[in-house]
This record gives sequence, structure tokens and C-alpha cells, in this order.
Amino acid sequence: MEGDEAATLRFVVERKSTGTQKLGDDESYHLVVKTDAVTLTSTEPLGALRGLETLLQLVGVTTQGFAIPAVDITDQPRFPWRGLSLDVSRHFIPFDEIKRTIDGLAMVKMNVFHWHLSDDQGFRIESKRYPRLHEYGSDGLYYTQTQVREVIAYAHDRGVRVVPEFDMPGHATSWLVGYPALATGKGPYKIIRDPGVLTATMDPTKPGTYVFLDGFIGEMTRLFPDAYFHIGGDEVAPKGEWATQPHIAAFMKKNRLQNLDALQTYFNRRILKIVAKYGKKMEGWDEILNPELPKTSMIQSWRGQKSLAEAARQGYSGILSSGYYLDLMQPAGQLYAVDPLKIEPGKDDPAAAPLTAEQQKLILGGEAAMWEELATQENIDAKLWPRTAAIAERLWSAADVTDAAFMYRRLVPVSQWLDGQGMQHVAQLRRMRARLAGPNAALLTEFAAILEPVKGYTRHRAKKYSMNTPFNRLVDSIAPESDAAREFRDATDRFLLMATDPESLRARLLQWRKASTAILPVLSDNALLQEDMEVARAMDDLCAIGLETLDLLRAGKKLTPDRAQNMRASIDGDSKPKADMLIQITPAVRALFERAQP
Amino acid sequence: MEGDEAATLRFVVERKSTGTQKLGDDESYHLVVKTDAVTLTSTEPLGALRGLETLLQLVGVTTQGFAIPAVDITDQPRFPWRGLSLDVSRHFIPFDEIKRTIDGLAMVKMNVFHWHLSDDQGFRIESKRYPRLHEYGSDGLYYTQTQVREVIAYAHDRGVRVVPEFDMPGHATSWLVGYPALATGKGPYKIIRDPGVLTATMDPTKPGTYVFLDGFIGEMTRLFPDAYFHIGGDEVAPKGEWATQPHIAAFMKKNRLQNLDALQTYFNRRILKIVAKYGKKMEGWDEILNPELPKTSMIQSWRGQKSLAEAARQGYSGILSSGYYLDLMQPAGQLYAVDPLKIEPGKDDPAAAPLTAEQQKLILGGEAAMWEELATQENIDAKLWPRTAAIAERLWSAADVTDAAFMYRRLVPVSQWLDGQGMQHVAQLRRMRARLAGPNAALLTEFAAILEPVKGYTRHRAKKYSMNTPFNRLVDSIAPESDAAREFRDATDRFLLMATDPESLRARLLQWRKASTAILPVLSDNALLQEDMEVARAMDDLCAIGLETLDLLRAGKKLTPDRAQNMRASIDGDSKPKADMLIQITPAVRALFERAQP
Repeated sequence: MEGDEAATLRFVVERKSTGTQKLGDDESYHLVVKTDAVTLTSTEPLGALRGLETLLQLVGVTTQGFAIPAVDITDQPRFPWRGLSLDVSRHFIPFDEIKRTIDGLAMVKMNVFHWHLSDDQGFRIESKRYPRLHEYGSDGLYYTQTQVREVIAYAHDRGVRVVPEFDMPGHATSWLVGYPALATGKGPYKIIRDPGVLTATMDPTKPGTYVFLDGFIGEMTRLFPDAYFHIGGDEVAPKGEWATQPHIAAFMKKNRLQNLDALQTYFNRRILKIVAKYGKKMEGWDEILNPELPKTSMIQSWRGQKSLAEAARQGYSGILSSGYYLDLMQPAGQLYAVDPLKIEPGKDDPAAAPLTAEQQKLILGGEAAMWEELATQENIDAKLWPRTAAIAERLWSAADVTDAAFMYRRLVPVSQWLDGQGMQHVAQLRRMRARLAGPNAALLTEFAAILEPVKGYTRHRAKKYSMNTPFNRLVDSIAPESDAAREFRDATDRFLLMATDPESLRARLLQWRKASTAILPVLSDNALLQEDMEVARAMDDLCAIGLETLDLLRAGKKLTPDRAQNMRASIDGDSKPKADMLIQITPAVRALFERAQP
Repeated sequence: MEGDEAATLRFVVERKSTGTQKLGDDESYHLVVKTDAVTLTSTEPLGALRGLETLLQLVGVTTQGFAIPAVDITDQPRFPWRGLSLDVSRHFIPFDEIKRTIDGLAMVKMNVFHWHLSDDQGFRIESKRYPRLHEYGSDGLYYTQTQVREVIAYAHDRGVRVVPEFDMPGHATSWLVGYPALATGKGPYKIIRDPGVLTATMDPTKPGTYVFLDGFIGEMTRLFPDAYFHIGGDEVAPKGEWATQPHIAAFMKKNRLQNLDALQTYFNRRILKIVAKYGKKMEGWDEILNPELPKTSMIQSWRGQKSLAEAARQGYSGILSSGYYLDLMQPAGQLYAVDPLKIEPGKDDPAAAPLTAEQQKLILGGEAAMWEELATQENIDAKLWPRTAAIAERLWSAADVTDAAFMYRRLVPVSQWLDGQGMQHVAQLRRMRARLAGPNAALLTEFAAILEPVKGYTRHRAKKYSMNTPFNRLVDSIAPESDAAREFRDATDRFLLMATDPESLRARLLQWRKASTAILPVLSDNALLQEDMEVARAMDDLCAIGLETLDLLRAGKKLTPDRAQNMRASIDGDSKPKADMLIQITPAVRALFERAQP
């Protein structure tokens, strides 16, 4: 475009936005880049925002200057609800980081910021009506209403809806610190410092509970303009206070509530009336689903596509979060493969009929979910980015765009782009490692390049942490996914298939072997890093095995049975989690080893 | 300390702080770290803040855990005024960056944030009384009064005073955009986009000027609690509007003002009355000095120690900024050598008597000054840090602590510490280079490791930029000072002195030669980087010369006269600025060359 006097950027927006952004607003756009002009056409300003993000991503530098490729793009999202659910209770995420996260959501064209504002470990929003909620329940770490209004306006300017969640009647200890009368038990209650599903639960039998919640929901629904109001409703501990308090049993008997689920339904029904009274649609996790729930309510599923499909069959709309849990440290490729409309064979009820087109439409999209037991404001961006971009693409693009290898080819530059635009995923981890290793940070980074945190609930289950843990270990300062290890795996696959490029494999193994030796004195000198010495030793071992088997395969030879047996034991040992991390070249080394079997 | 149940951190503060922080408040502290306790004693909370920063810097990780060395430190500043003057007019620096900068000042124990809020290129603060100041004069880039109050409170919590500066009567174009009646000329005026000393000047002859400034100064002195109010007063362009408007000449004649300096004195005298009326002491640059200035006024000197000493002889207090201009890209060692009380031989009036002890006390300290013609919010931290730490030490520590080599040994970890604590000097440049070179950013970083921006006013004078220039070139994305080049220079000096370690010199030259070749295709492909190709070629040439002379010296040989002549011409060419940068191994290579002279 440079040097062309006639070059212009034209926006054609058919109509004004209709005030508060809402589910189903038209996000489509048509972007045409020609040599003489860029034209961005959309029905609503929202579409122009989406198209602008595409345009920004297209800008590149050439030998002649900045340039945009000539394109003609007609684009619209597959799902109307594409969001991120962010837990700010387990660890507080400050105001600025919230705004930054909303910037990121807009960049990847997501349109919902779901703010998980309360849980056992903290109540994170100022209540003017019930000030002891934030005063007693937050350690002073909460958002003022002024800040909340600013976040909502900020998100609105970027085409992102803000949906608040207040988890009830379980996950509610932080409410009870200041207002123990709300509780089923006697209290007193303290802010919870440990992870897990707690027993403290609101009392569904007291009229006062509903008076309080009416006041609270009234206040919050005035603050948050979105049509949806999320009441949580998940994981009311089956062995919690409801199961142990005699007055609960008496109430259930009197009201013919046959079990605790029925009691929760009773509670939800009363909350629903309040939420509806304030003009909002109720949203909740799977547990809120029951026949009396009105069809305007919406289910967010942590249980999976089957649960969501069942809800749709009953006429309820819903979104998927199962499979999109960012805190479980799954690679982007795995998150990318999760489709809200694709029933996983393993989880599916084979007898269930496929969803009709109408039922499919009730599945509105999904939300990445970031739970904060193990993340802090120091490394939150690294948990969110770039993996959320893969989920965003899943929810925006057509169902048949599923090639993970192609996705990864785009994710690497997208990650760089997000970094350049202000996301802190690269900067945060670099800084944490710089703090850990000082002048040896570069060595530590090289060593850590093929490490990943353990997956799933391994670290959660071990429970060797509380919310006060500093989270300053090596595992806290590495990315959820190792690009270097993935690239090595791909290269190994190609080698095993076509015998290509063994020298590059060899060079990498030699380099990592060198790194794993060079880092040892740094690790042994540092109390925070000593636990990583066993990682370094295992890495050295794996690299040695990789080199040995690679050389055998290149020479057309096989392992001796004895050596193979020893090697298998070694690999098995090396593949076990160490210091809460995995050495992610293990699968590739194992594949080399298997090929060299006698 | 770890594992010791009895370990405690004890603060002993003798008295409460006395409200608004003021010049001369007691910042001394006594820090004792023993195996069983840390005790921090101070007269005022301010001293405890300073001692805490020391304590934080002492924390390290050992093989046993976090540890603090056992120390007994009695500490207090040499000068009571240690600050940073930050220009936010030429380029606006947003609210968050201001707070971060104040964090940094507190970390290095500085106690004044001097906020240069207006200049020709922008008026950066909301005025409720004269809203067209910020509305017309700022492009919407200004601080609200709410934000200003937050900055002041934030700084107060960290022991930093906030001194506002409103430059008048020159450097004032941005005022005149909304209020042209203030001007000497007829206007209309526009926000200035170019650097330089402009001609637009407030009209000292109109009563309305003083009515306006009374209203404005009244508003601002209510907003800023500090005892000092800075009126700028510098660089009233000698060929500006004052010199060209007949009514000015008439006024001067009538009032027997013999020259423009006398006219400015007249203006200052009237402003001084207003400032005094609102209970403030007036501060200004050298130009405000004249016999009628009351002794409570303070001079900030951009002219140097001599100017400051002269003021002190007349009984005026003052601070030094000359020599501390961060925008001139001088290395930390040079800034560190500048002492407010040390008269530079070259600048000194040899006839002047040394200052008496009383006069010396009038020299209150100094301020680093960061002018923003060539800096933006994208790289501001890299201009500030870590060099400001060297100035902070000069102003805090004893006069005889002057060993630059020792300072550098400490500055490298201090820079890492500032990075770990949230300063963005490392992150900003990394991000800018990542944007410049994408996947080749690591190569670009290696290439740029021995480059520095041109020094002094070279780039300012060339004036090939305006405030709207993107500042996205390589020169904008490198640090003011190259650690690698400095270390190479030191190693070369040692080699030339003692013939030590030629292999290490050789290895570095080979590495840079490789980097200068490897980067060429990256540079040639990118319109923003093409200008750096001549840098790469010159670097290659310098490395080759370094290698050739090094090998000769090791072999005990000399250059032939012909080769020496060619080489000198090459070095002379290579040492010239290219793409506004210098290859900072040039002095070391030249030293090797000179030693190998025939």
C-alpha cells in the first residue's frame, strides 16, 4: 500500500450497535484488500471490530515496506458464544491484568469474558450492600465497583461481553466469613487456603438466605449489564454440611425432597426467581439442570459434550468448557480437537440419537476455563496464551478445520503476535526464570526448553500446596507446552517414516545433553532448583538413549536384548514426573527405542 | 534465616511521618541482620522504606534456601534531593507507566518525581478551570486529576515527592492552541509535532496573561501538595515572538527593560508572586536566576555545576541535571562520574573561589532528566533503566565512591533485579526486536548486542523525525549501553596490558563476525531493517580487523605500513554513525590496531 496516494481504509457499517452487546449479535464481516483500497464491510460495528483484528494480523513487513496481502475474506463465527472463564478467587488477578486479558480475547475474536468472582478461597468484588463480603472474604484483594464498571466498558469497546459468576450454594466459604448466618453450619468460617471441594454451604432452609441473595443479586445485576447471570451451582459437596446438619434432614423430609440433588433444585428454583425478577437469564454448571429449570436458562458444561447434548435434547441452550480447561496443561492440539458438537466416542451414550439441527443450535459455543489453584498473577498470561487462541479458532472456524499440524504452524506466529501486542506470556516466564537463576537464566531456559508441567490433576491431587505457596519453582516458570519437544517429535516421526534428517535429530539431542549437564551446578547451588537435578539427570539419560538408538538405526542395526531391557527400564523411569514436570522428548525417544528393538 | 522459629523482622521507627513529605526529611536507617533477627531502625517511616529496599536487595537464594547476609548497615543519603525529571509532553507516557516508574525510583531510593507536564508538543494534565488546555493541547493524551491524585498518593506511599513543572513563558505552544489570547503572537497555534526550541511565547505584557496563570497556578497548587512548584522558564527563544512583535518592544521601552532577559525577569517576578501567594516555593531552570529572585527559589541546572555554584554563591539552592540527561544515551559510567559538587575543569571558571561549606549545602542534589523527543511509551523503561540507578547511587552515596568498574559489577545484577521487580527495560526491547524480526529475533538480538544509539544531540540535530514518527527502527529497540561491548573493551585493555586471554577476545570477534553475516538476509528482506545492512558490513569489517591485529600481536608481529594505512581508513569509516547507531567494539579494535602499528 505504501506510496500509493489513493490507498484508503474504508469502513462500511450498515447499522449502529444496539446498546448492550448480546448473544447472537452479528459479528460477520467482509474484508477486501486491493492495491488501491481496503474495504471492511459489516452489518454492525461488532463485525468491523472482528474484521479489524483480521486486518491487523495481515499486516507484514516486506522489502518495500509495510504491506497487506490482497485478500477477499467473508467471515463469520460458527458459534455465537466464545469465551474465557477466569477464576480470580483462588488467586486474585489484578485489574490491569483483567484489562490485558480482555485485549487478548478481542485479538482472537472471543466475545465473552466470564468472571468467576467468588469461591471458597476469595470473594473478589466490592458489595456496597453487604460490604463484609469483600472486606472479610478477600484479604483486601478485590475489584471496586468503579473498576468493574471500567472493565465492562473496556470490554464493550472491544466487543466482549462480561458475564459474572457468583458460585452458590457450594464453593461459597468466602461469603460466610463475613456473613456466617448464611451458612448451613455454625461457623465461624475462614477464607480457605487449600484447594479442593469444601464442605461449607449456604443454608437453603432459612428465609434469610434468600433475602440476602435477593439483595446481593439485585445489586450485582444492576452493576453487570449482560443478559446472563451465572450462579455457579457446581460441586455442592455430597458429604458437606447439608449431609450432616439435622435441620437440613428435617427440612428435606417436610418438603418431600428425596435427596441432596432435590434440595439443590429447590435452592436453584428460588434463586432462579430472584435472577428472573431482575430481568436476567440464569446460567449455571451442569448440576443446575433439572426439569423445572425454564428453557431460557443456560448450562455451562464441565462434564462434557454428552451432558450438553442431553440438555439440548431437553431444550436447554449450553456451552462447553469440559476439554477446554487451561489449568490442566494440555497442549493446544488437544484443546483444538475438542468440538462442542462432537460427541467423544468414549464418553458417549451409544444409544443416544444424534441431535437435530434445532437441538444443535442450542449448543452455543464454549469457554476456555482457567482455574487458578496453581496459577498466579505472575504467570497467568503463560497459562492463557497462546493456547486460548487455539480454542478461539475452534469456536470461530468451520467444523472441518481440524488439522492440528496446520494449526501449530499458525500458532507460533500468532503467539509472537500476541506477545508483540502486549500479552505477557513470554515476558512473565522469562522474568520468573531470571529471578530463579539470575545470570544463569539463559542456561536454565535452554535446559527447560523441552520440559512441560505435569498434566491433568496430577499436581492438584498431590495437594502439596496452598494458596499461600509462592509458586516460584521451575515448573511455575515454564510454558504449558514445549514447542521444541513437539518439533522434535514431528522430526522423529518423519525420520522413522522416511529416514530423513537424522543429523538434525542428533544435533538437538547433543544440545539438550549438553544443556542438562551444564545446568547441574546452577541447580545444585540453589535451594529452589535442587529438585530439578533429577530432571537434568533423566534428560541426560534420555538424550543418551536417543543418540544410541538413532546411531543404531542409521547403521541398520538393532539393540541387544539385554541392552533393550535396561533401556526400557531407564525410559520408564525417565518418563515419570519429576519436580512436577515431564521431559517431553520422552515419546520421541521411546519411538526411536521401539524401532531399534531386537 | 530459614527454619529458625525465632527469626523475626523488627521495625523500630521513632516517630510518625509529618504529613506531606518534604525536602530534608530524615531518610537515614540502621539495618542489622543477625542469625536470629532483622532489625530496621529509623527516625521516620521514610528511613524504614529506604532500609527495606536495601533489605530486599540483600535477599538471595542459597543451597539451603532464601538467605540474607549478616550485615550492620548505617546509611543515609549524601543529597536530600534525588530525582528524575520525566518529559511526558513530547511523547505521552501513560498512567500505568508513571506508576511503574515511581516503583523504580523507590527501588533505587530516589525521592523526587519531577513531572514535566507541558511543553510545545503537548499539554498533559486535565485543567477543570481551563479545560481547553488539555482538550485542545493534548490529542486526548493527558492525565485526569483523579489519576494525578492517585499518582501522588502512590508516590507518597513509596517515599517519593511529586513536583510538577509547567514550562512558561516559552515551550508553551500547547497552551496556546486552546487559549491563543495568552500568546505574544496572533496565532492560530497548533500542537507542535517537530522537536526544537519554538518561537511561540506567552505574552508578558497583557494583564490577562497573569489573570489566567493565577487561575491555573491556583488550581495546580491545590492539586499538588509538594512545597515546590516548577515554572520551567528555560529557552525562551531569542528570535521568538518577543523579538518580532512591536508591542513587546514598546512595553520594554516603557518599562525600561533593556533586553529580553530583563523581560523574562519581569515575567518571572510576576509569576513568582502568584506562586508565593499559593504558598509554594518556585523552582525553575537556570534562566530564572536573577538578583530579584527570593532566596527560597530553587534552580535546576541544565547548564552545569558552574552555573549551580554561581547560584549557590548568591545564596540560591539548586540541583544538577546537566550531565544526567538520559536521552543523550551516555553510558552509566559517564553519568556516574557527574557530581553536583565537582566542578568540571573544562567548564569551570578558574578564578571562582571554592564553595564554602554553607554554600555547598545549598546544592541539594540532582535529577536525572529524560526528554522524550526520541523515546515513546514503548521503550521508555529502556531509556530509564538501569542507568538511573547509577545516578541514584551518585546522589545517595559518599562523594568518594567513584569506581566505575565496581559500579558496573553491581549494575548488572541491579538491572536484573529491577527487571525481576517489574521494570520493563529488558522486556520492551525484546518485544520491539521480536516485532521487527519475528522468528529471526534471536539473530537480530545477537547482531545488536554490540550496537548503541548515537550519542548526544546527533540524532536530535539531524531532525529526521517528528513526534508522529513510529520509532520502530533497530536504533529504537536497543539499549543505550552495550554490556558486551564494554566487557570486550575491558578484556582488550587487560590483553594489551598483560597479554591475558587472547582466546576469549578471538572467540568473541568470531562470534560477532558470524552474527553480522548471518543477519544479512534478514535485514535485506525487511524494509525497516535494510538501513542496518551497512552496519552489518562494517561490523564484519571491524571483526576481521580485530582478528587480524590480534593474531599479529600474539605472534609478536606488526602491520605493514600499507596495510596499516588501509586499516585506519577502514576503522575510521566503520566508526562513523550508521543508521543512527555506533558499533561499540570500535574503540577496542582501534586499540588493538594502534598496538600493531609498524
